[in-house]
Amino acid sequence: MTPAAAAQDARIRAGVIGGSGSIGAELLRYLCVHPSVDLAWVTAHSSAGSRVSDVLPNLAGYTELSFVRLDELPDDLDGVQAVLVALPHNRSQEVIPALAERHPGIRFIDLGGDFRTPDPQGYLKHYGREHAAPEWLERFVYGFTEFQREKLPGARLVASPGCFATSLLLGLAPLAGAGMLRGEVFATGVTGSSGSGNEPKKTTHHPERATNFRAYKALEHQHMLEVEGFLSTLTREPFHVNFVPQSGPFVRGIFSTIFVPGVARATLEDTLRAAYDGEPLITFSRASPDVRLIQGTPRALIGFAGDSRQGAAFVALDNLGKGGASQAVQSLNRMFGFDETTGLMGLPGGFV
Amino acid sequence: MTPAAAAQDARIRAGVIGGSGSIGAELLRYLCVHPSVDLAWVTAHSSAGSRVSDVLPNLAGYTELSFVRLDELPDDLDGVQAVLVALPHNRSQEVIPALAERHPGIRFIDLGGDFRTPDPQGYLKHYGREHAAPEWLERFVYGFTEFQREKLPGARLVASPGCFATSLLLGLAPLAGAGMLRGEVFATGVTGSSGSGNEPKKTTHHPERATNFRAYKALEHQHMLEVEGFLSTLTREPFHVNFVPQSGPFVRGIFSTIFVPGVARATLEDTLRAAYDGEPLITFSRASPDVRLIQGTPRALIGFAGDSRQGAAFVALDNLGKGGASQAVQSLNRMFGFDETTGLMGLPGGFV
Amino acid sequence: MTPAAAAQDARIRAGVIGGSGSIGAELLRYLCVHPSVDLAWVTAHSSAGSRVSDVLPNLAGYTELSFVRLDELPDDLDGVQAVLVALPHNRSQEVIPALAERHPGIRFIDLGGDFRTPDPQGYLKHYGREHAAPEWLERFVYGFTEFQREKLPGARLVASPGCFATSLLLGLAPLAGAGMLRGEVFATGVTGSSGSGNEPKKTTHHPERATNFRAYKALEHQHMLEVEGFLSTLTREPFHVNFVPQSGPFVRGIFSTIFVPGVARATLEDTLRAAYDGEPLITFSRASPDVRLIQGTPRALIGFAGDSRQGAAFVALDNLGKGGASQAVQSLNRMFGFDETTGLMGLPGGFV
Amino acid sequence: MTPAAAAQDARIRAGVIGGSGSIGAELLRYLCVHPSVDLAWVTAHSSAGSRVSDVLPNLAGYTELSFVRLDELPDDLDGVQAVLVALPHNRSQEVIPALAERHPGIRFIDLGGDFRTPDPQGYLKHYGREHAAPEWLERFVYGFTEFQREKLPGARLVASPGCFATSLLLGLAPLAGAGMLRGEVFATGVTGSSGSGNEPKKTTHHPERATNFRAYKALEHQHMLEVEGFLSTLTREPFHVNFVPQSGPFVRGIFSTIFVPGVARATLEDTLRAAYDGEPLITFSRASPDVRLIQGTPRALIGFAGDSRQGAAFVALDNLGKGGASQAVQSLNRMFGFDETTGLMGLPGGFV
Repeated sequence: MTPAAAAQDARIRAGVIGGSGSIGAELLRYLCVHPSVDLAWVTAHSSAGSRVSDVLPNLAGYTELSFVRLDELPDDLDGVQAVLVALPHNRSQEVIPALAERHPGIRFIDLGGDFRTPDPQGYLKHYGREHAAPEWLERFVYGFTEFQREKLPGARLVASPGCFATSLLLGLAPLAGAGMLRGEVFATGVTGSSGSGNEPKKTTHHPERATNFRAYKALEHQHMLEVEGFLSTLTREPFHVNFVPQSGPFVRGIFSTIFVPGVARATLEDTLRAAYDGEPLITFSRASPDVRLIQGTPRALIGFAGDSRQGAAFVALDNLGKGGASQAVQSLNRMFGFDETTGLMGLPGGFV
Repeated sequence: MTPAAAAQDARIRAGVIGGSGSIGAELLRYLCVHPSVDLAWVTAHSSAGSRVSDVLPNLAGYTELSFVRLDELPDDLDGVQAVLVALPHNRSQEVIPALAERHPGIRFIDLGGDFRTPDPQGYLKHYGREHAAPEWLERFVYGFTEFQREKLPGARLVASPGCFATSLLLGLAPLAGAGMLRGEVFATGVTGSSGSGNEPKKTTHHPERATNFRAYKALEHQHMLEVEGFLSTLTREPFHVNFVPQSGPFVRGIFSTIFVPGVARATLEDTLRAAYDGEPLITFSRASPDVRLIQGTPRALIGFAGDSRQGAAFVALDNLGKGGASQAVQSLNRMFGFDETTGLMGLPGGFV
Repeated sequence: MTPAAAAQDARIRAGVIGGSGSIGAELLRYLCVHPSVDLAWVTAHSSAGSRVSDVLPNLAGYTELSFVRLDELPDDLDGVQAVLVALPHNRSQEVIPALAERHPGIRFIDLGGDFRTPDPQGYLKHYGREHAAPEWLERFVYGFTEFQREKLPGARLVASPGCFATSLLLGLAPLAGAGMLRGEVFATGVTGSSGSGNEPKKTTHHPERATNFRAYKALEHQHMLEVEGFLSTLTREPFHVNFVPQSGPFVRGIFSTIFVPGVARATLEDTLRAAYDGEPLITFSRASPDVRLIQGTPRALIGFAGDSRQGAAFVALDNLGKGGASQAVQSLNRMFGFDETTGLMGLPGGFV
Repeated sequence: MTPAAAAQDARIRAGVIGGSGSIGAELLRYLCVHPSVDLAWVTAHSSAGSRVSDVLPNLAGYTELSFVRLDELPDDLDGVQAVLVALPHNRSQEVIPALAERHPGIRFIDLGGDFRTPDPQGYLKHYGREHAAPEWLERFVYGFTEFQREKLPGARLVASPGCFATSLLLGLAPLAGAGMLRGEVFATGVTGSSGSGNEPKKTTHHPERATNFRAYKALEHQHMLEVEGFLSTLTREPFHVNFVPQSGPFVRGIFSTIFVPGVARATLEDTLRAAYDGEPLITFSRASPDVRLIQGTPRALIGFAGDSRQGAAFVALDNLGKGGASQAVQSLNRMFGFDETTGLMGLPGGFV
């Protein structure tokens, strides 16, 4: 009996490690109302001992839990079947292997950047340190749900994609799969400030961010590791993604613009529409997508421009949602045999 | 058998008149996922004939309806039991009486300003025109849910409060009921731009609004009609609400600041906490509420400041939600015997 | 020969202590183009050694200075006649007295909160610590320029008002002077995020500030010390200012709303228009002022609402400008006999 | 005697046609304080008869003029030497030729899109109508100041560049001049909402714009006409600019990202730094420029990213300033022999 079959029609108990960060808080938002998940515990570091709804007042009435410290959890982790880990980069590699060895029956979803490719050299280059558990890298399934759907029911360890990575892969993976991705690709991606986490810093200081626009980590963002890594599993053509991340004066959302030189609009549109036909969480826009329409939602919105000479594809998603927490819940649903959108569609996003 | 009992445990069919405006769109957001409501039809004027999800792409996947014209509806209004009306001010008085006469079995909730007080002279003064159906004013129940809860199951015609009015009444009604409201009250209320509707105008022109702050209709806002009108039903003390509405550079939400001269913080806090004890949609903040925590939600958040000499109360709510659409759904739930929060709590608001 | 006469038609040399903070940076913006001031040096703590235009790139091309440490200045302070001090609260009391004793010929303008009232008990209560130089408090002239204009030419030590204080005093001082200020006054004041300084903190973290509105230090803001203190010099009537500061999602500007119970609109308007007749930096608005029109400028904009029963006054100014740096330059101009707007009007603010 | 020599050391009289639009208002902001320009008159359509400072209260105290109607001007245009025209696209072609014929001694600067290339077919394609004065196209000098500086003193008719065009040309013109521009170029450019003018519309409706990000006119923006047109005068290599304009939730500024495939960062940086060495209005940023640092200023800020394989260039400027009004003043200064920055640097922009 596969784990998925075992869980079907059943409820599961789940724990969250790192529930007070930006992604963790968004994860709780979905898990609190998930009809098939009982949230058993949530850890946090500095907020341990506080009620979740005191730290995250948006959840008042939705959960009675208090944050606990990871090292205070009972030995059996309170009988959970799933643990979702939303720690800062470079941290889950110190946490998940130990827990996973001790609890062979528990399945893990990591929302950080530690286990997204089987490439320790790439990790060193992009994340600036030797990976502490390189032998675990190969054991993780990359949780880019729409393309990895069949691998999730049997997966025990899942690494959920990064926010920029999800936006780029949604545009590029179908092209790679169709053999159309080759040579130099050029892309920009604008993110809201929630992508920087919940620790105040200069780049999220309101007086300096509120009316500003700038690029950062241009042509050297660490998500290229997973983007190029995953795309390489889909195509043998050589390609390179030249990506300029940018920060905009809004809170939630990513808007990516993708140029594949020489690929026409119709080719882009036909390929992507075919790839996502019937997908419940991917919708298409007549022209450009609007970021505001996916803020706070688990969806991606895709649009196109151009002509028969050159096209461009646009992908909009919420960096905390489809680019973070809700994509992890999508994977969780697949892993445990629930309908993939369970717990995600309880209330549409607003028009404004 | 009361209408409420009849409806209990049953589903109802409902129609929406004016579903493409700001409040109408928010109403659809809640009704699309309401587990006890089948949305039968939605009217719109200029968008008639278009799919709802083309006009409001946030609802893609949530409804297959298209907007229709009011005069195209079948004679029996397609068998609905409830009609919610979200037209601009001065319009529902021309629509509801006729429909209500023709369909004595249908119950109506008006979200506009036309039927909120039984005072045609006040209407003339504040809304600038003679009321077209003054004899209908007395027939409406004012749908300020927390204070009118017992009147709703038997009500056929409900006038849902205005956004500023709800924020002020949440702070002042308990004081009025306790005999503490007398003399001059001073209040400011800051609203986001969605309160101006979905027609572009100078005060919502992004270049002029995005970094601006200003007052408007100061000491002469039309919501004072319903605020003073409703409060007068709760107290015999003379009082006057001096209210300055203000517009801030955000989209959703109202933040009201209320001073009752001579009323201490503890009095304010004790009275309001007692009044709303156990209320599912009203929560309290340790200090000031944060508007962002109620954006996109059906909740109000109340806080306090001051000392034994003088206090202040703060009320934050979403002008489109608790100050508009979700309050109407709250009343609808009461009218038809559903749990009051049905369809409203499917997904918490975000922390950011 | 008075100092003012000595300086007339001449240029002065000036130094700035604390030029890398929010107010200090704005001060440099004005002093860099001041036709009668030679900026001799600017101190900063963590940025010492860096070029001003590297830390504040908006000033590239306007100054060639580098930041220096205060303790590196030459013994004669490089021959300056004026020192402007823009340190965080509680800091200038440790700096100015020592410098002023050593340099009796130099005149000082403090932009912090340390020397704004002659009341050490009030200082303890509002700023939370014993004043380190209480005997110096009486020696400072409060630099509320429009009302203290005559005292400035002879002043050696000037304490420039706080941002909220300036906005409230502009509305209230003429009333106090006319004997109309008595009893309880109620006011709110909304500030942009630049009022919190340039150190990132939770209340200026963009994800939490960008769409938010909240109150803080309500009914207990430290500026009430100087507001009530200065107003008391103008009236013998008893009064109390109940002030709720609020933070809005914009960067620059303050918008204050003032209710004096029982004072009619016409009284407010007549009194304030008369008080500021001919003032170059105070303009009036037909209805509410718009904050955006004073952003980045040295001006205040005043408006009114209400009727013969009750009025309200509105004051808009830039917290960094008229509520901070430009008011200090206004005082500097008066102290040294320059035209009061010298260096302030070189380019109007934008319409958007 | 050339016109430039004639004007040197002298003052000129100037008139503005279309002073109440976004660009016109910004033009007045600079001209009001220009030490060598006497502003004789300003026309406006719907605001004719109103004081300029009532329509644009930011200019109160800076001008006593009232708006007049174009057809009310005296026959001699009140003796002006220069007329600046800031009308919507497609309008100045109906105004300038007639005036220029009647007044051979007057020099004109057009800030609209009508006369920016000598290509009537391109005009038809990009602006959607037959040009009404095609024979005048060749008579205009394209006022891209840094590259056309030598042509301006003798020019009588100048067409000032568009906002996006300026940002792209600042990055691409030096490359074209150095023969490095060939093949496909990819670029995105994000503009603030002031680029849409001062008429409220759906894309500038605050509720829909304030947190949004989207592309528009992608790969088909009309500014490509002048960008490709001007670049073609600098290089014989074939090239094509694939440009995606985007709209961001801020008011002022453009941030453009430029990829020339195969051109390394060092090449970009060396070429652009050399091209703009000594330019007073172009500064360089160590990494990405920040849009906020050029808001309200006449400057452009340029930065770079990438490595020896592939680089990217970033250009930030104010769409109303260097991309609009201030660039026109720069050209005016050159035309009449004033120092090029006269009237532009009276007050630096703010750090926030």
